[in-house]
Amino acid sequence: MADLTRPIFLLTDFGTRDSYVGQVRAVIAGIAPHSLVVDLTHDVEPFAVDHGAWLLESALPALPPSAVVMAVVDPGVGSARRGLLVLREGRAFIGPDNGVLSCAFPTELRDGRGGESPDVRELTDPRFHRPTVSATFHARDIFGPVAAHIAAGVDYREVGPPAVNPVLLPPCCGQPAAMGELHGEVVHVDRFGNLVTTIRAAQLFPSFELEVAGRVIARHVRTFADAPPAEPFCHVDSSGFIAIAVNMGSAAATLGVGRRAPVVVRAR
Amino acid sequence: MADLTRPIFLLTDFGTRDSYVGQVRAVIAGIAPHSLVVDLTHDVEPFAVDHGAWLLESALPALPPSAVVMAVVDPGVGSARRGLLVLREGRAFIGPDNGVLSCAFPTELRDGRGGESPDVRELTDPRFHRPTVSATFHARDIFGPVAAHIAAGVDYREVGPPAVNPVLLPPCCGQPAAMGELHGEVVHVDRFGNLVTTIRAAQLFPSFELEVAGRVIARHVRTFADAPPAEPFCHVDSSGFIAIAVNMGSAAATLGVGRRAPVVVRAR
Amino acid sequence: MADLTRPIFLLTDFGTRDSYVGQVRAVIAGIAPHSLVVDLTHDVEPFAVDHGAWLLESALPALPPSAVVMAVVDPGVGSARRGLLVLREGRAFIGPDNGVLSCAFPTELRDGRGGESPDVRELTDPRFHRPTVSATFHARDIFGPVAAHIAAGVDYREVGPPAVNPVLLPPCCGQPAAMGELHGEVVHVDRFGNLVTTIRAAQLFPSFELEVAGRVIARHVRTFADAPPAEPFCHVDSSGFIAIAVNMGSAAATLGVGRRAPVVVRAR
Repeated sequence: MADLTRPIFLLTDFGTRDSYVGQVRAVIAGIAPHSLVVDLTHDVEPFAVDHGAWLLESALPALPPSAVVMAVVDPGVGSARRGLLVLREGRAFIGPDNGVLSCAFPTELRDGRGGESPDVRELTDPRFHRPTVSATFHARDIFGPVAAHIAAGVDYREVGPPAVNPVLLPPCCGQPAAMGELHGEVVHVDRFGNLVTTIRAAQLFPSFELEVAGRVIARHVRTFADAPPAEPFCHVDSSGFIAIAVNMGSAAATLGVGRRAPVVVRAR
Repeated sequence: MADLTRPIFLLTDFGTRDSYVGQVRAVIAGIAPHSLVVDLTHDVEPFAVDHGAWLLESALPALPPSAVVMAVVDPGVGSARRGLLVLREGRAFIGPDNGVLSCAFPTELRDGRGGESPDVRELTDPRFHRPTVSATFHARDIFGPVAAHIAAGVDYREVGPPAVNPVLLPPCCGQPAAMGELHGEVVHVDRFGNLVTTIRAAQLFPSFELEVAGRVIARHVRTFADAPPAEPFCHVDSSGFIAIAVNMGSAAATLGVGRRAPVVVRAR
Repeated sequence: MADLTRPIFLLTDFGTRDSYVGQVRAVIAGIAPHSLVVDLTHDVEPFAVDHGAWLLESALPALPPSAVVMAVVDPGVGSARRGLLVLREGRAFIGPDNGVLSCAFPTELRDGRGGESPDVRELTDPRFHRPTVSATFHARDIFGPVAAHIAAGVDYREVGPPAVNPVLLPPCCGQPAAMGELHGEVVHVDRFGNLVTTIRAAQLFPSFELEVAGRVIARHVRTFADAPPAEPFCHVDSSGFIAIAVNMGSAAATLGVGRRAPVVVRAR
């Protein structure tokens, strides 16, 4: 029944120059032919679990409540690392147990107060995997099929037992340092060369300046068009993080800065 | 009803390395879950409204009559520039009021004979936007949701009142210069290095030569295989514009030419 | 009827920076609006028919039995080369007659024992093409429309008569050389820099070493995580070919090797 299928969202570091994403979609099509499948992005930096975790977290508010998400950045594929399903506010998140799903975990787990939750399952039941599982492509052979079965109506508790002590990344946010100072880094460089930082708008001081690559940026604006050309400025990006941008230009090129560059925000 | 939903086509300068397109599709999926969504391309040159306008115009003949199009190249996002819906021969076009939708406008507007049409609406009704609208991502928060509502059956007149004096780009075509001479430029470099010009096949002289980057190209052929390797030639590309190509090679690399390079066509 | 439509898989060398794939999908949407359309990849090396043929073959096991495949790498577009439909185990494959569909041909043709099969048809019936066919874009004007009509239920024999003597590429596998030696080449470099070779796992000696770019690689492992960082190793990739990889790194960069680099496997 088309009306009962849930949409599936894909996030990986596979790129699109190979047929990997196509193979995942092909397997999903065989199991849940009526499910809509949407690419969030496949350009996570190869092997960079933290990058994938941030990209997932920043896209989260746009996802419908019925979303089934497959997020795979998986340098440990085929090793003893587990596969997980995490249920969060009705949405299901499926991927390796390496922290890429961190934003999906229940708050009590994220706070370190508990190591087990009925909403975190290990993907052990082979009924929901491909009959033959390769050593290096679990997105096609395990994660994608499980996502498709969930989208097609399988109860999430059927995929396997509760998983104890999943891997969680520290929350992505600025770290308080000296009084009136937050330390963070560039977590993402977007297509336009905008530098998105780990510092959240909600953490900001009423008045602040930002330092990156030895340069102090005091201007902050609401929209790109509010800034003069060529001069870097800060703004709150569309996912609620502080970003550095240049009107009609690339902040990454202007500042010579990439992912993981340290950023300091100071109250003024 | 699946049979009543209209397909949605997306054209942006967002690229696919970020989750921006995925977020737009996620929001659309929440409003029009049964609509087919097709990427025309997301590799418009960043901020290049004229490039987006040409890419849309050249893809137009392939779109079905029921198409709903969201075209967003939007350096002025969040400023006072308006959002528009344009109805043209049954199709609906949605995007910023900066000329990117030029090919969709009724002829009487394009000719400058009138400043208002019932088929051009301003996107003012917040019922069709996301509840919270960001300052920098109107494709997710306004244009995408409006496109989804239209695809799901909302009457186009509900999105807002007629918009007076929309921004229109000049028609994309060769400019008559001296007798028997047309001036144009390279408007697009495709994946193969083919150089597509602004000069339309319909404008051509019965016999002609083309000059680009100081080189005169006299050969014109119907198919790539009709030309010897390594030698640039002209042909009418699949969208009706004159293009410069090299059989089994890249005209862009062979000639050292990119977008906006001037092109002259002369009768012979 | 949504339940009767077949999914369509696309494989081309078109890239995604142009609207070419979008135009193909738009035309398909007009003919088979309820068919799922999946990109296998559009990043086949431009004009490289053998690369497209390998990408199709390696993705084949993931495709559902009802798949309709359009595979287009077509330097001869618009010339006298034919368009074909090949039926194989229920799946339909559509593309130019230049070998890109090799993996789809019935075994008796691949063995060179027969030049004709009722399951190989020439695309001659214009009822299933666009009304106007361009000289340079048959994916939009012929192959895509035929794929859409097949997906929507047209019998494959209606597209045209049996085609005699189709072009077939030699099977992609290692060539036996000296005793205990196989010669092959790198057929694909993936997003991670993994070097996939033409040598199949099924061809391997019980114990072997591989030589590429003057370097002998004796380590073979089952998963990436089984190998120490920075050191190239061999493994059987997810499609059953021998690949050279580096744990958390790029074998292509480490070895300075690309597509078509010769590879030798020797028994030990």
